[in-house]
Amino acid sequence: MSDENNSEEYYKSYENLDVHHLMLSDKPRTLAYRTAILNAKDKFVDKVVMDVGAGTGILSMFCAQAGAKKVYAVEASIIAELIPDVAKENNFEDKIEVIQKRVENIAADEIEKVDIIVSEWMGFYLLHEGMMDSVIIARDRFLKQDGLIFPDTAKIYAAPCQLPSVHEFWDDVYGVKMRSVASQYIKAKIKPDVLDLPQEDLLGDGVLLVWLDLNTIDSEDLNSLGIEESISICNKAGNYQGFCIWFDVDFPDGSTLSTSPSSESTHWKQTIIVMPGTIKVEEKEPVAFNLKFDRNSEDCRKYNLSFTQLDPEEVSHPIPCDCYMTKCIVTKAFLESQKQE
Amino acid sequence: MSDENNSEEYYKSYENLDVHHLMLSDKPRTLAYRTAILNAKDKFVDKVVMDVGAGTGILSMFCAQAGAKKVYAVEASIIAELIPDVAKENNFEDKIEVIQKRVENIAADEIEKVDIIVSEWMGFYLLHEGMMDSVIIARDRFLKQDGLIFPDTAKIYAAPCQLPSVHEFWDDVYGVKMRSVASQYIKAKIKPDVLDLPQEDLLGDGVLLVWLDLNTIDSEDLNSLGIEESISICNKAGNYQGFCIWFDVDFPDGSTLSTSPSSESTHWKQTIIVMPGTIKVEEKEPVAFNLKFDRNSEDCRKYNLSFTQLDPEEVSHPIPCDCYMTKCIVTKAFLESQKQE
Repeated sequence: MSDENNSEEYYKSYENLDVHHLMLSDKPRTLAYRTAILNAKDKFVDKVVMDVGAGTGILSMFCAQAGAKKVYAVEASIIAELIPDVAKENNFEDKIEVIQKRVENIAADEIEKVDIIVSEWMGFYLLHEGMMDSVIIARDRFLKQDGLIFPDTAKIYAAPCQLPSVHEFWDDVYGVKMRSVASQYIKAKIKPDVLDLPQEDLLGDGVLLVWLDLNTIDSEDLNSLGIEESISICNKAGNYQGFCIWFDVDFPDGSTLSTSPSSESTHWKQTIIVMPGTIKVEEKEPVAFNLKFDRNSEDCRKYNLSFTQLDPEEVSHPIPCDCYMTKCIVTKAFLESQKQE
Repeated sequence: MSDENNSEEYYKSYENLDVHHLMLSDKPRTLAYRTAILNAKDKFVDKVVMDVGAGTGILSMFCAQAGAKKVYAVEASIIAELIPDVAKENNFEDKIEVIQKRVENIAADEIEKVDIIVSEWMGFYLLHEGMMDSVIIARDRFLKQDGLIFPDTAKIYAAPCQLPSVHEFWDDVYGVKMRSVASQYIKAKIKPDVLDLPQEDLLGDGVLLVWLDLNTIDSEDLNSLGIEESISICNKAGNYQGFCIWFDVDFPDGSTLSTSPSSESTHWKQTIIVMPGTIKVEEKEPVAFNLKFDRNSEDCRKYNLSFTQLDPEEVSHPIPCDCYMTKCIVTKAFLESQKQE
């Protein structure tokens, strides 16, 4: 399935320790895993765990701290060679077994079955260069019946937003008008941006576009994701200039790692689709869209995002719906009167 | 002198409008030029100006706002095509003349001589991929006798610093010891880092290493810069783990754009040389070093930085010197007693 050349590059790029330093320095990310694992000590004590894509081994150490009997730290890159020393420093050398292989290359009978899989596999907007496929393979090959996966659900959300730094920025650049540059600048924004969107630039709540249950999902389910017709209701008036995409993952203990604009910033930031123009929206205005994620046929670690604006008149709304359209106001009033009777 | 292939790449990379957005969004940078130019209105009124590497034309517009009669906006990349529209938006179409060429390719008799040159040519640690050579050519070919250059001086400073995010970070990574990773991480840091150093991590004042007068300097003077033997006196106790390098430029009106850790952050940040170990230093301890910048023989837009720690006992100290060494305390006391008499 995977293009071998692209994979090689992927594993080489992780040899760069700066990337691991960046990921470890991402406090909401690393602490979310620590909290979820240490919260669930009762589930880890005396259990066998597999850490898929262990990197420097931080999650493996958290699992050992939580009482795991044994942790297979699976890491294909040269970084794997650092893990035994880390284990030793933390007095876990008897618990951690490093396997310097891609999980795809470990035979089913090579190691024992595991009670828990932990993995930090998420990429930009969850899917980009993500390694959920490896987690699925690990699950199917090594996880015991009723075993646990940390995290076990993943969700992608999107919401309309305003982008003043992309659009209005050019109106007055320290006293100079540059609208003519703006149009070229926005035209060139064909690829999504990755940035921290200020929370106040969100125009609506996140609409759930993708909901993945890692206990049951298959690789083929990941080929095409998204929803044909979605509706977001603006919760304030503003300049609708793009869509903001983020993801959350949930752990078996009930805790969540969120990369939304209202959560503490992570290295994933948010992924932004820039629209070519500005649409003035009002509070309660419905915004309809089609947002799809399709696997790139050349490189299965990448996705093509496609975004289409739809006419909110021609899309079916939820029932009840909070938008300002007459049919929704009437439906909602009717439902409320029924409830009172 | 310049490798043509490298130059081509350089001009192409500026076609990316994201880079211009980033530079315009750098408020201390852009406002420093605006302030310096508008402060010096008396020098701009009815004068002819050349903007070397004009980009989107922002500095050209500031010059026109300051009253310039004519501004030659010299920009080799395709971005030049945007400048006439920007000029029009600001009603300066009669003042701005765009020349879509490298300044090196404009013949001396092609345009009139200019009263003022403005240019934002600085790169990381001033010199990296900088274009001071182009400013020197513009000066020699087009600037009138006694003409002005904005900015007209440039200085590089360096100071010892502590780097807790590089060194101590690994001591306790959310409850996990990772000192064994630290040594590999630091070993891999052969190239300087570019980051915003927290001001409190500076261990001494900046030592002036390079002082360039743009009115008189020649390209050959830029081949090798730095000082054989420098001394920095620590102004507090700490972990000496690296050197922090930054630059300032001064404008003819007396204003300064500083990229020091104590100034507002810019896109240049600071350049950090990471030392392999930690040296505990005390207040008033002298730190001696050799820091040199030599042009890369393959690519004249790049420099090789070389850093050597020296023995403060074997380096001549300034007189008087504030360090704690006996000879300096004695010399200083003697000089002070002389002054009192």
